[in-house]
Amino acid sequence: MIIDCHGHYTTAPKALEEYRKRQIDGLKKPAQAPSRTAPAISDDEIRASLENAQLKMQRERGTDLTIFSPRAGSMGHHIGNADTSRRWSEICNDLIHRACTLYPQNFVGVCQLPQSPGVAPGKCVAELERCVKELGFIGCNLNPDPSGGYWTDPPLTDKWWYPLYEKLVELDVPAMVHVSMSCNPNFHFTGAHYINADTTAFMQFITSDLFTDFPTLKFIIPHGGGAVPYHWGRYRGIAQDMGKPPLKELLLNNVYFDTCVYHRPGIELLLKVIPADNILFASEMVGAVRGIDPESGHYYDDTRRYVDSIDWLSAADRGKIFGGNARKVYSRLKL
Amino acid sequence: MIIDCHGHYTTAPKALEEYRKRQIDGLKKPAQAPSRTAPAISDDEIRASLENAQLKMQRERGTDLTIFSPRAGSMGHHIGNADTSRRWSEICNDLIHRACTLYPQNFVGVCQLPQSPGVAPGKCVAELERCVKELGFIGCNLNPDPSGGYWTDPPLTDKWWYPLYEKLVELDVPAMVHVSMSCNPNFHFTGAHYINADTTAFMQFITSDLFTDFPTLKFIIPHGGGAVPYHWGRYRGIAQDMGKPPLKELLLNNVYFDTCVYHRPGIELLLKVIPADNILFASEMVGAVRGIDPESGHYYDDTRRYVDSIDWLSAADRGKIFGGNARKVYSRLKL
Repeated sequence: MIIDCHGHYTTAPKALEEYRKRQIDGLKKPAQAPSRTAPAISDDEIRASLENAQLKMQRERGTDLTIFSPRAGSMGHHIGNADTSRRWSEICNDLIHRACTLYPQNFVGVCQLPQSPGVAPGKCVAELERCVKELGFIGCNLNPDPSGGYWTDPPLTDKWWYPLYEKLVELDVPAMVHVSMSCNPNFHFTGAHYINADTTAFMQFITSDLFTDFPTLKFIIPHGGGAVPYHWGRYRGIAQDMGKPPLKELLLNNVYFDTCVYHRPGIELLLKVIPADNILFASEMVGAVRGIDPESGHYYDDTRRYVDSIDWLSAADRGKIFGGNARKVYSRLKL
Repeated sequence: MIIDCHGHYTTAPKALEEYRKRQIDGLKKPAQAPSRTAPAISDDEIRASLENAQLKMQRERGTDLTIFSPRAGSMGHHIGNADTSRRWSEICNDLIHRACTLYPQNFVGVCQLPQSPGVAPGKCVAELERCVKELGFIGCNLNPDPSGGYWTDPPLTDKWWYPLYEKLVELDVPAMVHVSMSCNPNFHFTGAHYINADTTAFMQFITSDLFTDFPTLKFIIPHGGGAVPYHWGRYRGIAQDMGKPPLKELLLNNVYFDTCVYHRPGIELLLKVIPADNILFASEMVGAVRGIDPESGHYYDDTRRYVDSIDWLSAADRGKIFGGNARKVYSRLKL
């Protein structure tokens, strides 16, 4: 079974977006705010939104299960306040739960957290617990920059985040480090902000004692780990200059990378440089890059092809990357 | 002749740092501000600072000429105001000029610009012109984020920057995109801020028409282009989804990458993915990573070894990377 650990519900029915629009409008004109009831979306609408998109691609690409979360770019933690974010997260997470219930063989849920800039991450614990215990979710997405491109909250290694980490550890669920949209005109969201956040989080982990404090805390850094594998020598060297132990010892019991790298040479580098135990297959389809690569004739985000094409990868390592590691990292995954 | 296009004067005599400290102290207590005279540094002190560092490494590694600029982390454009930055830049650039004059076969100058957050980049034109016309410099370092990690100025593609670009084009000198220190606790400076800035600048270039407006403007993106070559498929795909021409057409007449990637697999990826015409040899020694890699027994930043070890690289392409491209991009280089 091939597990894709990184998929967002980017094709959700329009009513969801319309709800969000009303919610945002309601911040200025409370009379326009939607009721607290979820938008009316039928099961058939959910099926239609998935059948010709994620499910079609699973079938075509021969992947089985997608670890599925709300659209990352739409989390918009900077919008409104903690209450805005809480209500929006509940609605998005409930919709993921419905998709997972309709297709229990194809999707398993990961939640969006109701983060808000300047608001203590401990405030997200209730929604995390609800999603894991009541909805059967197996992890969460954690935004290291709820401000949306201005990076005004403390680094992920600050004690500010510890109450949330305590709950992650208690529930034994991992967090994927994933920002949302960028409001900063300097950062294109999928081309710069996403990749920068991945790189930034990894470097924060290097400089800290976070995994001494939380030896079982687990993070997935998506998009192939940002710039990290390409600059693996730089990170090994910086850690060494700081007198830190080798990276493997320092953080590879806690930090994992996905395979959302959209060309073969990138995937080959990732597999060469990062131990197979720390790589989880992922495509982020339907996501940041929708087109077909004229050089290969296949979708850029059909990452299975790249992994398949690496002929020096052992069967054992291939098995870990395609599913074994996901079962280990997402320990609540029971399929 | 092997040209290293990326070296900073990280070993400058202590008097320089002491001057800067007095300048910063003087911002709060004007009585402590240093006079406008440059700090007293003798030629012998300059020689001593270089002989056992950059010059020793040039000899040991068999490289010839370093394109040399003031220490990037010390530019500190966010400190004080435009006048602070102007005086500090003049002093740093003059010192580079002295090093280049003492060792004309080993160093050629690139200047720091007197940028300041919120101050129009056109204000840097006078210092750029002085450095090029009077000191014989062949380029500049351009900080895309003078705020030092808060990214409060407009993107590099905004007309805000055009007066500076007009002068770069007129003088026919390239700019290396290079941030300075980070004041934002989220960003480690050499491990996150530098790499993020490289990635960010490239993505800004993709979304703009900058090179239609300035067909001969040239940028070097250092540190191997940040995350860009590793995610080359992502960038090709994002540009394609935006309806842009292929990246080669869109920006590879204007954008170059250096080889400051500190392990062989990273360098191999860079050389595989980016056309040889767009790669300039560089090491950034003595710089961000000072140690010896226990896996190879050699300095992490001895990038010549990695390039040398790529046996599939043609002699013609090797020649371009080691010097031919630098002569083309830095057209004022006459050695």
